[in-house]
Amino acid sequence: MRILRVDMASKEIRYEPVPEKYTHFSGRALIANLLLEEIPPTCDALGPHNKLIFTPGLLGGAGVTTAGRLSVGAKSPLTKGVKESNAGGIAGDSLGKMGLRAVVIENQPLRKEFYILHITAKGATLESANEYLGLGTYATSKKLEEKFGADSSIISIGQAGEFLLTGAGISTTGEKEQRSNYAARGGLGAVMGSKGLKAVVIDKPVLKTVQFVDAELFRTAAKAFAQKLLDDPKLGPQGGQHLYGTASIVGAVNEMGALPTRNFSNGNFEDSTKLRGEYMRELILAREGKVGTRCMPGCVIACRNLFVDKNGKEIVGTVQYETIALVGSNLGLDNLDDVALLNYMCNDLGLDTIETGAALGIAMEAGLVKPGDTQGFVALLNQVGEGTALGRVIGNGAEVTGRVFGIRRVPTTLGQAIPGYDPRSLKGNGVTYATSPQGADHTAGNAFGARKEVNPLGKEGQKELSLKLQIISAMLDSTGLCLFARPPVIADPQLMVDMLNGIYGWNWTKEDLDQYNRNVLRVEIEFNRRAGLTFADYRIPEYMREEPLAPHNSVFDIPDSDLDSVFEKL
Amino acid sequence: MRILRVDMASKEIRYEPVPEKYTHFSGRALIANLLLEEIPPTCDALGPHNKLIFTPGLLGGAGVTTAGRLSVGAKSPLTKGVKESNAGGIAGDSLGKMGLRAVVIENQPLRKEFYILHITAKGATLESANEYLGLGTYATSKKLEEKFGADSSIISIGQAGEFLLTGAGISTTGEKEQRSNYAARGGLGAVMGSKGLKAVVIDKPVLKTVQFVDAELFRTAAKAFAQKLLDDPKLGPQGGQHLYGTASIVGAVNEMGALPTRNFSNGNFEDSTKLRGEYMRELILAREGKVGTRCMPGCVIACRNLFVDKNGKEIVGTVQYETIALVGSNLGLDNLDDVALLNYMCNDLGLDTIETGAALGIAMEAGLVKPGDTQGFVALLNQVGEGTALGRVIGNGAEVTGRVFGIRRVPTTLGQAIPGYDPRSLKGNGVTYATSPQGADHTAGNAFGARKEVNPLGKEGQKELSLKLQIISAMLDSTGLCLFARPPVIADPQLMVDMLNGIYGWNWTKEDLDQYNRNVLRVEIEFNRRAGLTFADYRIPEYMREEPLAPHNSVFDIPDSDLDSVFEKL
Repeated sequence: MRILRVDMASKEIRYEPVPEKYTHFSGRALIANLLLEEIPPTCDALGPHNKLIFTPGLLGGAGVTTAGRLSVGAKSPLTKGVKESNAGGIAGDSLGKMGLRAVVIENQPLRKEFYILHITAKGATLESANEYLGLGTYATSKKLEEKFGADSSIISIGQAGEFLLTGAGISTTGEKEQRSNYAARGGLGAVMGSKGLKAVVIDKPVLKTVQFVDAELFRTAAKAFAQKLLDDPKLGPQGGQHLYGTASIVGAVNEMGALPTRNFSNGNFEDSTKLRGEYMRELILAREGKVGTRCMPGCVIACRNLFVDKNGKEIVGTVQYETIALVGSNLGLDNLDDVALLNYMCNDLGLDTIETGAALGIAMEAGLVKPGDTQGFVALLNQVGEGTALGRVIGNGAEVTGRVFGIRRVPTTLGQAIPGYDPRSLKGNGVTYATSPQGADHTAGNAFGARKEVNPLGKEGQKELSLKLQIISAMLDSTGLCLFARPPVIADPQLMVDMLNGIYGWNWTKEDLDQYNRNVLRVEIEFNRRAGLTFADYRIPEYMREEPLAPHNSVFDIPDSDLDSVFEKL
Repeated sequence: MRILRVDMASKEIRYEPVPEKYTHFSGRALIANLLLEEIPPTCDALGPHNKLIFTPGLLGGAGVTTAGRLSVGAKSPLTKGVKESNAGGIAGDSLGKMGLRAVVIENQPLRKEFYILHITAKGATLESANEYLGLGTYATSKKLEEKFGADSSIISIGQAGEFLLTGAGISTTGEKEQRSNYAARGGLGAVMGSKGLKAVVIDKPVLKTVQFVDAELFRTAAKAFAQKLLDDPKLGPQGGQHLYGTASIVGAVNEMGALPTRNFSNGNFEDSTKLRGEYMRELILAREGKVGTRCMPGCVIACRNLFVDKNGKEIVGTVQYETIALVGSNLGLDNLDDVALLNYMCNDLGLDTIETGAALGIAMEAGLVKPGDTQGFVALLNQVGEGTALGRVIGNGAEVTGRVFGIRRVPTTLGQAIPGYDPRSLKGNGVTYATSPQGADHTAGNAFGARKEVNPLGKEGQKELSLKLQIISAMLDSTGLCLFARPPVIADPQLMVDMLNGIYGWNWTKEDLDQYNRNVLRVEIEFNRRAGLTFADYRIPEYMREEPLAPHNSVFDIPDSDLDSVFEKL
């Protein structure tokens, strides 16, 4: 395995064997360790000292179902701490099959100029991106596929990333026409923009899989893992996740009073039925769109959809829960067509729908647009693409929007927007949002699935639950496994141990894996500490401790001492 | 002495004797101790838990020359730390004579609404500010004087403070027509706005001075102090400070290569001669404006001016050095009429000229306006008053403007704009900017005056110099003494000790005074620590360590270890 390093100032491109110290690291684990090792933690996140890392998980390229995610990482311009954000699509798998543990983008051009990085089996080249500048991610990837082949994988930023807006994400393509898989969070699109990198094109790899040290051990475990997913009542072919996608939880989150509604001012949305996954499935099928499609080849969960309009024409693929919550109920929108339209616009502009939905919610509270006014939101998003002052404010995310318009009700932690579960009614998520070194993140340790084990409204058990989930997340994000595929490896960690040992021959035990996962968090926490983040940053916004949230009139009342001691037993 | 507390939620107004624990505190010392004692350091600076404090220094109301400054303090929405900003005018003197150690504004209205606080000898009242909303500070204070009397003192915010813009300052009136004395820094105007307070009106006090415990001791020291100021070659009637005001240093700062020029991209401004104090004096006198006027009655330095246009009509009183640097050379403006116009606009809108000049410099670098394009800058400032998105961005200061427009060259520390001395060519100031608990501030420990003792371009002696100056600043800001009046009390601290003992009967020694001053810093540092600020915040911007500044091609190269150990001997 090798690491590809690209210096955007000198344009030097070099391959190196994976250094000894990074032997066991890939995905989120590699990002954490490489950033701690190689960049000054206090550096300007949009300056030359930050590094942007593309890395598959440890399972990348091995052909494990649901395990081909691409991790993207850097110091975040949004949280000022370490950031890993991962996406589906085929890039993670391709890098793995090419024997690349990571692509590390270093330095930045002295003047503002943009490049395309093209990675083939034989090597990598940089070329001017002039003809792609100002294009959204759809047009960019389409044009690049025309040039480099429809079977290549495209990682790109839209206008938001070019403008260095801290709400910018990074888009990856999947098979065929699939466009909008997102490493959305943490403003990594702005880091990519700051590196002068408009897109990365990865050729279709020649090899079918990575090499295995013990192919038999690997295959037995990988097969058992896939079978368990298929047998899972929630995830398998009859499961809600497959039938309704991530939107399957809209109803449940609304019922528990945690659905962000009109800038997090309510946990119940009166029109939530029209946003539910069950309703969406019917709508899509009636219109001859697609449900149960995959972001990664071979995924057995297949939670994705292709949302189409009344005439069967694609609006966006795929509409997911977080987007429904943040640009749906949070903006007072009761119409999936409108949600899908805003979703498409964000994807094309290169914006995180969570961060942008939260920012639009604040713009709404500031009186710039009324709840439910789709055309008003469309107009605001158009301004992002045009680069107007207002557009750039929105594109910079919730905290900047709140600051500019003098709004106090800003749902963020570590400067990053809170996703689709109000922490006042799902307090375990509040603990994760507050304490995760990744900032408010729905994949960093989401307590929704444990709502029957730990009372979402209670104080008890939340910090223990959050820690457990954060450790699992560290594993998922380091192996390239999708969040939804976690049940089999939680039930039987030996499955993951066997797959890793089969690929790498490490002879790990379950204890080794557990320590590995914990160490990811330890390294991230240390990076953030050196970056200057403190207990004062690891907090839920003040107003959420004081303004009761309907319908439970709940506040976030987990004591600071609990937040400060979450990692005591790490 | 009493403290007046006003609860802006309940509208309760109450007087209390100065609590035992605050006996020795006034001005900056009171602000630091009261904030540490009474507010959660991590609170939202624009939320209900912050407190806004108006307090004269310990000498306030005693009739000491040049010692009537009003300190305003709160947790800063700009730096997120403790903030004290002080202004001339007559409010500090009036509060002292009324026997008020402080006015503390607590809590905030539940809905956005604004009030006028009227303080008389008999008591205080709140009344609606509806008829003043949207007015600048000139119209506001004029209208309030018409209602409450021309001899009252008006403290007010403009549109910037109403909009909660973090570049907003607080304006105080002086004698007669004098309008624009500013507690400019730290975004305290936004805190005042968040409290729903448009203005404070203080009646002309009945008493001539405070009561003295030992009037003879006081008078002897106060008289000696005034005489020493008069005899000082720089400050007295023939001194540059009196003749040319603070602008007397334009030439020297330019020569040392530290004059902020075109967004801090050069330390030399080719047209600086047209911005010099000597030139300004001639210009003003030729136009029959005024020089050598006072912001505080009885001040013997009298550094103020009334800048008039070609027809002798007032543009603004007063044009000062920091404004000349930040909205003059920093914007590529070579014309004092233009500087005066922008100065007036900032004063009227209620904006800090330092923060706003820095923000405009960034807007210039972002291509929104060209260097030297006065009308372009006027148009941007007009947008602040109109509350457009772009106007609000600018009004929020340098850091927000840089973030929104993706500009890396943002001259701030602790989120607050660096004043008129580029730290690459006046490194002692760099140490102060980086380490002061007040953030980048020209009054927190300005090394310009010591440029012949410590080489401004060298590394040696800077941290020791900064510490010495920061301790002195703590004394000045706690006693209400103007920065310019420091030479006599530095040469002979017993003068200050005698004045204080004369008023209060504390029997302090010089050592007591020194410890008092140091303790102000200790308390502020502790507040900031609890607020979550760390070494990572106490830094000069990355680009200033890497981009050499003409004409010396100097970078800021004081090691971090020096910055981290400035207060070791505090």
